[in-house]
Amino acid sequence: MDNFIDVNQVLGYEFPLKQFRYDQRDVCLYALGVGAGEDPMNREELPFVYEFSPRFTPLPTLAVTFPFDAIGTITSVPGMRFNPMMLLHGEQKLELLRPLPLQATLTNRAVITAVYDKGSGAVIVIEATSLNEQGEPLCRNTSHIFIRGLGGFGGERGPSGAKNVPPDRAPDAVVHQKTRENQALLYRLAGDPNPLHADPDMAALGNFPRPILHGLCTFGFAGRAVLSQFAGNDPKRMQSLECRFTRHVFPGETLATEMWQVAAGQVLFQVRVVERNEIVLANAAAVISEQ
Amino acid sequence: MDNFIDVNQVLGYEFPLKQFRYDQRDVCLYALGVGAGEDPMNREELPFVYEFSPRFTPLPTLAVTFPFDAIGTITSVPGMRFNPMMLLHGEQKLELLRPLPLQATLTNRAVITAVYDKGSGAVIVIEATSLNEQGEPLCRNTSHIFIRGLGGFGGERGPSGAKNVPPDRAPDAVVHQKTRENQALLYRLAGDPNPLHADPDMAALGNFPRPILHGLCTFGFAGRAVLSQFAGNDPKRMQSLECRFTRHVFPGETLATEMWQVAAGQVLFQVRVVERNEIVLANAAAVISEQ
Repeated sequence: MDNFIDVNQVLGYEFPLKQFRYDQRDVCLYALGVGAGEDPMNREELPFVYEFSPRFTPLPTLAVTFPFDAIGTITSVPGMRFNPMMLLHGEQKLELLRPLPLQATLTNRAVITAVYDKGSGAVIVIEATSLNEQGEPLCRNTSHIFIRGLGGFGGERGPSGAKNVPPDRAPDAVVHQKTRENQALLYRLAGDPNPLHADPDMAALGNFPRPILHGLCTFGFAGRAVLSQFAGNDPKRMQSLECRFTRHVFPGETLATEMWQVAAGQVLFQVRVVERNEIVLANAAAVISEQ
Repeated sequence: MDNFIDVNQVLGYEFPLKQFRYDQRDVCLYALGVGAGEDPMNREELPFVYEFSPRFTPLPTLAVTFPFDAIGTITSVPGMRFNPMMLLHGEQKLELLRPLPLQATLTNRAVITAVYDKGSGAVIVIEATSLNEQGEPLCRNTSHIFIRGLGGFGGERGPSGAKNVPPDRAPDAVVHQKTRENQALLYRLAGDPNPLHADPDMAALGNFPRPILHGLCTFGFAGRAVLSQFAGNDPKRMQSLECRFTRHVFPGETLATEMWQVAAGQVLFQVRVVERNEIVLANAAAVISEQ
């Protein structure tokens, strides 16, 4: 299959509107998928995994699962053609505009807002807005999808230079979280059923010795770390969360989320895999509102 | 509230017919709930947790979740009145009559087939048959529900004497399985949302220092052990599985399922919590068909 991209056709493309429903069980399942409830006596996190809790509430990062179906049709966007195996999730930004309901039927409106030519590949920027039943915007997910081999079409290179670089001092807080061997098998039921995260043969095709964790699963672990350290575990205070994915994580590895408060309500962070001492999620930032 | 039972009214009671639906995600979620997928490179168990596997199939013990809703109305059976906190799951027998579909809408027909007076309490025996879309019986669950404080009504004591007693020799096979701290939080999403298994306060009311694992979750772990050792991990070969619940299990503890093959296709087993060296599931038996 020949790679092909016609920027004029791709830029501004509006994905078909897609509905997304979640219920209270989905809320609990997602939270378990990103490691909440590992200590069942931790009453701070019980409201994320237990629907009868008087403080039951979704984790804010549940919202990254909303536009999954909408974006899933990227392989059939008119004006480009590529091998789906060449697709990488490069960056993610989640903006929370309203508190997440305990259950909802949402409509996702997704648009390709930028196309960059990185030489070795193309970056497709997708902005997906999820609307609640009243048509009000609930959250916005901006995803940078890197497609290897699709570059060199003479397009704009896009913004460069690292953003959200942590200060040159020890972190203000570090949270260690052990992922479980079955973490990807669990996360995929809530987030993304991509075989790369479950099937050893598919992982081997991607040159991995075993299935890898979803980048957005790591994102959810990091979100819990920030929420506990800087937002009193109150999801309503989380305004936005963004990061770049730099390396894979294997289920079972230990994540260390290193956090720096650089201004009131501004937290920079990165995630390190302890066993390999490698940064897997970088240039990350959270905006937290006052109580 | 006064305890009260009128055996004539209770015996033979037919529960309202209830539908039960499950889909492929429920199949995977249940399997993770009973510990399958703990080793994601174990290709023997991948078909239980991964819906794109060419050998995708439900674990046979998924069938214990079918009549949950039907039996859930036991507190409103005419002719008896009791405090639901006094209810204990005493025994379970699962008979598999047809291979379980990958997804289905079932109808549960449940009847109280026996009521025994044990002095300290009553045993209510419920037989629940799950019918497939064609009205054919798919499986039958027989549950012995012990209700403390409801005995002494002058009823039949029921069968006594231990059955399924393992022979006085070392087991033919022992499988060790580590449950996870979040096991009950996960299992409850597939099987039984009872707060006793999630809420530390409810656990304390039941005199437990922390939430306990569902008896039927342990049953599922044991079922996996039997399936792997004596049925080549082929669910179609599992004909029946039965046990008595003798002690609680705390999430995080290690289960040792000790198995004896006593005749062709006949396996007796028991489950021991390794950390406390206590038998938690006893007088258990499985019937396995030829390949």
